[in-house]
Amino acid sequence: MRKITSKDNKIVKLCEQLSQKKYRDKLALYLIEGENLIEEAVKNGAEIQTVLVREGYSGRFSGLEEVAFALDERLFAQLAQTETSQGIIAIVKKPQISREQFIDDAGGNFVVLDRLQDPGNIGTILRTADAAGYKLAVVMKGTADVFSPKVVRAATGSLFRMPVVFMDSEEELLEFTRAAGKKLVATCFDTDLYYYDVNLKDNIALIIGNEGNGISESLIRSSDVKIKIPMHGSIESLNASVAAGILMYEAVRP
Amino acid sequence: MRKITSKDNKIVKLCEQLSQKKYRDKLALYLIEGENLIEEAVKNGAEIQTVLVREGYSGRFSGLEEVAFALDERLFAQLAQTETSQGIIAIVKKPQISREQFIDDAGGNFVVLDRLQDPGNIGTILRTADAAGYKLAVVMKGTADVFSPKVVRAATGSLFRMPVVFMDSEEELLEFTRAAGKKLVATCFDTDLYYYDVNLKDNIALIIGNEGNGISESLIRSSDVKIKIPMHGSIESLNASVAAGILMYEAVRP
Repeated sequence: MRKITSKDNKIVKLCEQLSQKKYRDKLALYLIEGENLIEEAVKNGAEIQTVLVREGYSGRFSGLEEVAFALDERLFAQLAQTETSQGIIAIVKKPQISREQFIDDAGGNFVVLDRLQDPGNIGTILRTADAAGYKLAVVMKGTADVFSPKVVRAATGSLFRMPVVFMDSEEELLEFTRAAGKKLVATCFDTDLYYYDVNLKDNIALIIGNEGNGISESLIRSSDVKIKIPMHGSIESLNASVAAGILMYEAVRP
Repeated sequence: MRKITSKDNKIVKLCEQLSQKKYRDKLALYLIEGENLIEEAVKNGAEIQTVLVREGYSGRFSGLEEVAFALDERLFAQLAQTETSQGIIAIVKKPQISREQFIDDAGGNFVVLDRLQDPGNIGTILRTADAAGYKLAVVMKGTADVFSPKVVRAATGSLFRMPVVFMDSEEELLEFTRAAGKKLVATCFDTDLYYYDVNLKDNIALIIGNEGNGISESLIRSSDVKIKIPMHGSIESLNASVAAGILMYEAVRP
């Protein structure tokens, strides 16, 4: 295997840059770490550009030997995102998803992330959307980066299966969901409908709002269906990824 | 307000100790931080022993002035758990919960945490159990500390409302849930029953398993009801707190 020994090597530099959103955006690349995640990426057809392993790495390679480089322990430790790294990191190309392919009559649901900030929540919502058979994740401007290492970890491979598209404005979202024939569904306080009173099975675009402030007021006003989740006693809200799970699994229930 | 100026002050020392589980166990005290959480604690009758504020703190006190001490900025920063602290920390007495009071005929559900490790998951499950009207959380030996700062934060006040009891062994759990008349419910792969095929409304003790390994094999064998959550495609599992949310909200659905 080829070796990298200098911290000035251009692949090492690239890997360091990709810990920042601006370079992930500019270069359309991101990082994944660990055997399982890399195996999932390969299995789901993600394009892996480069693999970096710790010298002496004896784990799985998933047929990636040709793009692999070995780094000495100190150099690898500089790049690893987790303290207990398994010794393998990959640089992956972001998928190119065209939103047009989702404007069809085939049914299915979208989940819309409205300015979520917690990477754990974002990754967990992608994972749950995947498990619930959702078709697409729509990410609103102002949401934390879907390709950050923490989101990638929390999504446990679902980022390689769940297509993601990005919207710059609420107008753009409304135009897209209308064209795709999806009813826009928002959770809010100001409604008498509980989530189990309406049909959340198919052809909806379910909005999950920011952890602190919920869904934007204007997006709530533009929604076709407004629902709430009942809560016992004095509790005011659920964790965003738990609420998303309860609502998305309405599509799975018979 | 009284002031503390020395890092050798016994309240400062106590606060430092309480960042460790062994002292929280030994002293039956724990820490909470931030205005909202402290207000929730007071509202729900938690016993607050001491309050520490950053010098110049101008936020809410929730009637706790009598037990409050001011610390200079540097000393306070040493004790704060979050980088963006609001400047108020409280030392709280752990509630004394007797399990006997839950052996009654009044119905209700328990959630059982079987060796969960992620504090975010534990806190989120307590929060969701509270919202779903669950009656009690049962914590198995080997679960991460329910009174750690990260759990307390993720529970967003539910720790002051949701009673928690601790079990040293599966035998102890089985004896308790039987005495309380609860059906023990486990999720596992080896079952044909989906969660919506069975009645999860009342008188169940729902087990949520460890993030990596699920529920212990022996506990699955001892369960009265074994269910699974359907998952689309190649995905193997949901996040533990999302799975808990979907299952616990079966009690809320009509």
